Amino acid sequence: MDESDAGLLAPGRAGSAAETATGDHAFLQALLDAEAALARALSGYGLAPAEAGRAVTAAANAGRFDVRDLALRARSGGNPVIPLVADLSAAVDEKTRPFVHRGATSQDILDTAAMLVASRTLAHVLDDLGRTAETLGRLAAEHRDTPMPGRTLTQHAVPTTFGLKAAGWRSMVLDARDRLRSVRESLPAQLGGAAGTLAAFRADGGDEAAPALVAAYARELGLAGPLLPWHTLRTPVADLAGALAFTAGALGKAAADVLTLSRTETAELAEGSGGGSSAMPHKANPVRATLIAAAARRAPGLAATLYGSLAAEDERPAGAWHAEWEPLRDLLRLVGGAAWDAAELTEGLRVFPSAMRNHLGLTGGLIVSERLAAVAAGRVGRARAAEMLTAAAARARDEGESLAGVLAGEPAFEGMDLSELTDPARYTGCAGFLTDRALERR
Amino acid sequence: MDESDAGLLAPGRAGSAAETATGDHAFLQALLDAEAALARALSGYGLAPAEAGRAVTAAANAGRFDVRDLALRARSGGNPVIPLVADLSAAVDEKTRPFVHRGATSQDILDTAAMLVASRTLAHVLDDLGRTAETLGRLAAEHRDTPMPGRTLTQHAVPTTFGLKAAGWRSMVLDARDRLRSVRESLPAQLGGAAGTLAAFRADGGDEAAPALVAAYARELGLAGPLLPWHTLRTPVADLAGALAFTAGALGKAAADVLTLSRTETAELAEGSGGGSSAMPHKANPVRATLIAAAARRAPGLAATLYGSLAAEDERPAGAWHAEWEPLRDLLRLVGGAAWDAAELTEGLRVFPSAMRNHLGLTGGLIVSERLAAVAAGRVGRARAAEMLTAAAARARDEGESLAGVLAGEPAFEGMDLSELTDPARYTGCAGFLTDRALERR
Amino acid sequence: MDESDAGLLAPGRAGSAAETATGDHAFLQALLDAEAALARALSGYGLAPAEAGRAVTAAANAGRFDVRDLALRARSGGNPVIPLVADLSAAVDEKTRPFVHRGATSQDILDTAAMLVASRTLAHVLDDLGRTAETLGRLAAEHRDTPMPGRTLTQHAVPTTFGLKAAGWRSMVLDARDRLRSVRESLPAQLGGAAGTLAAFRADGGDEAAPALVAAYARELGLAGPLLPWHTLRTPVADLAGALAFTAGALGKAAADVLTLSRTETAELAEGSGGGSSAMPHKANPVRATLIAAAARRAPGLAATLYGSLAAEDERPAGAWHAEWEPLRDLLRLVGGAAWDAAELTEGLRVFPSAMRNHLGLTGGLIVSERLAAVAAGRVGRARAAEMLTAAAARARDEGESLAGVLAGEPAFEGMDLSELTDPARYTGCAGFLTDRALERR
Amino acid sequence: MDESDAGLLAPGRAGSAAETATGDHAFLQALLDAEAALARALSGYGLAPAEAGRAVTAAANAGRFDVRDLALRARSGGNPVIPLVADLSAAVDEKTRPFVHRGATSQDILDTAAMLVASRTLAHVLDDLGRTAETLGRLAAEHRDTPMPGRTLTQHAVPTTFGLKAAGWRSMVLDARDRLRSVRESLPAQLGGAAGTLAAFRADGGDEAAPALVAAYARELGLAGPLLPWHTLRTPVADLAGALAFTAGALGKAAADVLTLSRTETAELAEGSGGGSSAMPHKANPVRATLIAAAARRAPGLAATLYGSLAAEDERPAGAWHAEWEPLRDLLRLVGGAAWDAAELTEGLRVFPSAMRNHLGLTGGLIVSERLAAVAAGRVGRARAAEMLTAAAARARDEGESLAGVLAGEPAFEGMDLSELTDPARYTGCAGFLTDRALERR
Repeated sequence: MDESDAGLLAPGRAGSAAETATGDHAFLQALLDAEAALARALSGYGLAPAEAGRAVTAAANAGRFDVRDLALRARSGGNPVIPLVADLSAAVDEKTRPFVHRGATSQDILDTAAMLVASRTLAHVLDDLGRTAETLGRLAAEHRDTPMPGRTLTQHAVPTTFGLKAAGWRSMVLDARDRLRSVRESLPAQLGGAAGTLAAFRADGGDEAAPALVAAYARELGLAGPLLPWHTLRTPVADLAGALAFTAGALGKAAADVLTLSRTETAELAEGSGGGSSAMPHKANPVRATLIAAAARRAPGLAATLYGSLAAEDERPAGAWHAEWEPLRDLLRLVGGAAWDAAELTEGLRVFPSAMRNHLGLTGGLIVSERLAAVAAGRVGRARAAEMLTAAAARARDEGESLAGVLAGEPAFEGMDLSELTDPARYTGCAGFLTDRALERR
Repeated sequence: MDESDAGLLAPGRAGSAAETATGDHAFLQALLDAEAALARALSGYGLAPAEAGRAVTAAANAGRFDVRDLALRARSGGNPVIPLVADLSAAVDEKTRPFVHRGATSQDILDTAAMLVASRTLAHVLDDLGRTAETLGRLAAEHRDTPMPGRTLTQHAVPTTFGLKAAGWRSMVLDARDRLRSVRESLPAQLGGAAGTLAAFRADGGDEAAPALVAAYARELGLAGPLLPWHTLRTPVADLAGALAFTAGALGKAAADVLTLSRTETAELAEGSGGGSSAMPHKANPVRATLIAAAARRAPGLAATLYGSLAAEDERPAGAWHAEWEPLRDLLRLVGGAAWDAAELTEGLRVFPSAMRNHLGLTGGLIVSERLAAVAAGRVGRARAAEMLTAAAARARDEGESLAGVLAGEPAFEGMDLSELTDPARYTGCAGFLTDRALERR
Repeated sequence: MDESDAGLLAPGRAGSAAETATGDHAFLQALLDAEAALARALSGYGLAPAEAGRAVTAAANAGRFDVRDLALRARSGGNPVIPLVADLSAAVDEKTRPFVHRGATSQDILDTAAMLVASRTLAHVLDDLGRTAETLGRLAAEHRDTPMPGRTLTQHAVPTTFGLKAAGWRSMVLDARDRLRSVRESLPAQLGGAAGTLAAFRADGGDEAAPALVAAYARELGLAGPLLPWHTLRTPVADLAGALAFTAGALGKAAADVLTLSRTETAELAEGSGGGSSAMPHKANPVRATLIAAAARRAPGLAATLYGSLAAEDERPAGAWHAEWEPLRDLLRLVGGAAWDAAELTEGLRVFPSAMRNHLGLTGGLIVSERLAAVAAGRVGRARAAEMLTAAAARARDEGESLAGVLAGEPAFEGMDLSELTDPARYTGCAGFLTDRALERR
Repeated sequence: MDESDAGLLAPGRAGSAAETATGDHAFLQALLDAEAALARALSGYGLAPAEAGRAVTAAANAGRFDVRDLALRARSGGNPVIPLVADLSAAVDEKTRPFVHRGATSQDILDTAAMLVASRTLAHVLDDLGRTAETLGRLAAEHRDTPMPGRTLTQHAVPTTFGLKAAGWRSMVLDARDRLRSVRESLPAQLGGAAGTLAAFRADGGDEAAPALVAAYARELGLAGPLLPWHTLRTPVADLAGALAFTAGALGKAAADVLTLSRTETAELAEGSGGGSSAMPHKANPVRATLIAAAARRAPGLAATLYGSLAAEDERPAGAWHAEWEPLRDLLRLVGGAAWDAAELTEGLRVFPSAMRNHLGLTGGLIVSERLAAVAAGRVGRARAAEMLTAAAARARDEGESLAGVLAGEPAFEGMDLSELTDPARYTGCAGFLTDRALERR
């Protein structure tokens, strides 16, 4: 029987670039990349023969190692680097062997690999967020003046526009992009040796040699050089946790709106090609939004575990570190899948302005009661205006009449154009201006 | 490149029975078991030809289906049952085909499979908890009278015994066992049809036929029959979440103690065969306890996601349900791995009574200051006694003298045997009695 | 300036019985109740003069103590029992003074008080759940045959009834009631002394005296007697966490449905007296459902913290215990408020069967496509039937025609009564039967 | 009976500046500050008489309002702004009354008040973090060359220095400071009106007037001007959640180390004035570290709730917003208390270099086995060296001999100074260099 997972329970990320970038194979390659970079850095600083860097690099090919076997042998020491070092050592010639993993601790390699995996996965996520932001920018511009009901606590409040809504979604996507980009740029390599003192690298090179080696190692990997070994100073992991949980939630905002506005009774939006159902041929489910919403529900709990691991005792904690590995990967995957889904969702989104327009009339004009209250208050006082409108609202609701009709003859509105005053499309405030201003942000 | 996971980041469960029982292959088999049971139940109630049940059952073999392909095709409809029904239909003869998945909705099959997977995994977990409880019972009995420092807020408080500590661990394991067993016995099958009304099963059978079919389906699977379809009444999932999070924490209690008492300075306990280190030949890490501790850190966040999914709108929610799949499986796996680790940890645990005895002397008798304060209070009053002992404690600490020595000549203890009064092994209270009583629980 | 909180940010519980039962005043009284019960138990067992129990009990009146002053003085030792013991000692006569808190540790008193507060608060919660279940039982019976759209992934699926929905809500409320009741019945008193060995109570009484004292103390308080001191065996707290998080989510399920079905476009339900808005006179917000939904969002994170505290090292942990106090109280309060809100919500709920009926027609009959597919499949095969209905569904949607109209003349339905076949009210399956059966549960 | 809380269960924050800054009184004042700023901005833009701004400002004094009464009246509409607007209106003259809260929605005021409270609380937090960082800088410099055991997975690994450890704690404090400062600088005011379109402010002023009003309102409050109303674009709340959870964890790292190193057996550190115990005069508990550790355990769950609220539907969500209020305040308080505790903890911390030095000898030289392995490998090969040292380690352990003694005569070390090679103080690597470099950061 095969124990491996192939994504059967993960339709939100199956087939995504983020899935490939975070799979065991990719993680194994990242572990090997870290070992190879270390060997090259050692060679570069004369701490290993020049040939060692090349030899380890040549051997560091994930395809040559047995992931499942490594996983099983990881059990005894509690991490996969211990068996990997054995196998990598066996894969190089005898002269190179002593320089494999030299001076490093398992955590150096595993933390560095996690940062590489994060960096590589985030490249895909950032691409998808970029696509999504672009699409939303187009949608917002196109629907700058498409009025629709603004809703608060599930009820119609005052009108808004779909352009403003799409601009808001876009601003969340850009916030996510900015946070992820900033975190990605500062992802550090890890290299501290057994307890973070660089003792095994110091050798005879004096104080400056080992830090220079760390810097070279980081450069080889395209990661930032750390100011201190961060074995138990987990800022990079916490920063990833925060930015990823933010991104899941930011996409979750748009998904929540799409789900709400796709409901059969509302149908102001629909996904491009809704998911079908085996039993019900008519169903067109908002599947992409559903899967994004699921990711947004899961991300906070995973991030909480990672924040909890900040409180890590000693120079390597017994549990806090190990508790990070899978949640960090799960977060990267979830967000990777959600970003992909968001790009598809927004690109295929169908908008129904006529449904929006129709719904503006659902409350018989009550959706502009704020406006009427303000106008009337100026004439008959706030209390009297509120009382009158509450009564009119009730009458309009009960009798199914329009508010303009009910209010005709009301002294507070004498001489005013009630059909204009009660036209929702004329009461979208600064929605257009705000949309334009938001779209200036790049 | 292979996207599948083989446990590289999961040394806590790689190779465990729980891992096999929760893998994609096992989940796929459970999905097929549900479809087969449905077909047999339909045949049994005359809603399908007698042959259909047998034919679907014969085809329902996970080895014949391509998990990865199903995972990829699940993306479009958002769940793996849709493509599975297609493939299973293709795998049976034309006469059987119309009865595959008949009347069911994807959630019926997926929820039922999740319960099957949970039930099968919990069988292993319960075995491992049973082994662990047995070992702890032996340890507690053996060390019923082994005194050691009781510690509160990291400091020595008053003496206790290792027997009482082990009995406490055992009581947590038994609490976990009881909770898991009770949940396992009530895990229900799911069968409600598209919106939980059993409409497609009702056919001409009248009101009672469809519920009887549900009961037969549940019996076929060895699961409980549900009172109502529970598509959005998620008690079973929440109950699993609670019992699993409890178990992780219950094992985490013992792990926390083992980690603390294994510290190099304390060394009152050691794991049987500690994990090694490539760089440091002397290291013997408490790896099992570390991995259990990691599981205990992760379980609450996963359970939180599952509790959050209780608030599920409509007859099938858009996201809350999908957010359950992986966290539930992750919880089962984590706890499965932790229970296995706990069995190994306790079976191999090495106890060092002499280290415990030595540490009782570390505070020069201060560890029994509670006793002395009580005795002295009876003679010179509480306030005076506290004052005198605080001074004596400071003097003993500063001068490195024993408390008995410092207190000799103190009127409050005149005529008393100070070496007996300050002997920690004589002040373990009812530890033995409590241990015996706790061990009576089966 | 006053630092105290009076519920300004907590409309979900302000004014509730649960709020009073969990406030600092109530908690202080519970601490004092624990001290008084201990004194009485000591008197009863001859470990204190007979008068001591009465004297401490008389003094143990929260109104006589300064909560804020205790809170400030708690800072130095990290818990409020230390200053409270000082103040309580000062409040009794000199002869009684030595017997205040005798043999106990702060955690004995604080844990016991937490259980008392939980027990008292849960009495209110259980009352409110009982009221809610009763109301829902009436609603379910009344609407046993009120058809409405069943919805999955936000889209109409097949018809259901409001009776079945209300019966489902009720079953969740009953599940919550059962879980809370069972936990409440087993809430234990805490009494173990400094490190849980009962050493200070053992005195000369032999092994059995101290456990008997513990049992008497528990009886005085109406709590269960613990098998072991549970200073770091936190089953009672974790059980509360699980049952409370479950209850929040169980109520959250009904709230999610009410919110969804109250939306302006749907309006199948409305709260009795919706919350108003200062600016918009027409607004009638589903405030009770909103506040319950907020509680359901908060409970899982609080429960996660409590589950995390299970992994508590030593005989009293440095942090895990302290991290329980406020989250446990917050959970009790949140759930207390939500249960009160649920009782009000359900008692005032307005149901609009005509809106439900109207919505059944929204898809022009597509809501019964499952039924049609099954019927047609019997005649023309599954694949052909699905294809035909998909086309018909599209045509009905695009042309705004009824499905019965589009399908007239379709050979697959020849000779059948299409208006009956496409009548949603005739396709509610076993909803009535399931409702009846669910209501039999008490 | 009084329902208010005075901090009885919160010794971690009772009496702190953060507590005062987050209490109901302070929150009420912030709500009033927002209303007053709005009135002044309206006056400034001619949307209200010049006098209105002054009049509302004069009335906006929290001392004049009844917090408990507001809390109780908040229940009906679900937020405290509705009754507050009524009371504030009643507190001003009739001419001013129409301009109270004009054009605003409750969320404008509540969100703005939350940002004000956050900004004011963070000022205290940043002060305390600054103090802590300064103290840690001194400690790190002072102990730059104080060797101590580096510990991984609870076991001695290789030597490190206390200076490097303190420098690491400081770097976490600075990371927290940077994150909080950056979030604090961007905290935005909220002003969007009923559905975020600024419709009620637009009046006749054209598109630019209302946004200018928003900017003026923000300036009045010292908050940033928002690009868009953020009623359901919750970046500011999520950013606070992340930075606060980070801070709790960053301080939790130091607390975890203090707790570990304060254990009776280790005693390399002690808090300045440990918390006492009523029963055990000798106890000196690390109370400050304990309370910080408790805060670090609670923060992730609270942050998770806030991240979960990002997925907020519509223009104001039914629950997600309400679920933010208390968790955000709780986080601010927890972190405020923890930062205060950290300042006290570090200022009073007692360091015992001699205990550290003694512990370096605990493994009889094994703590430098990495060094020996490296040296020996160069002479006899890696495999042979590892084997030899493993055997020597076992012998040293079993026979209680020093490693130097066991290894004397070993060919691999011929001609080398074994007492130098096995001296832990000579194997602290680049600890000093790294400490110096880390201290350059300001």
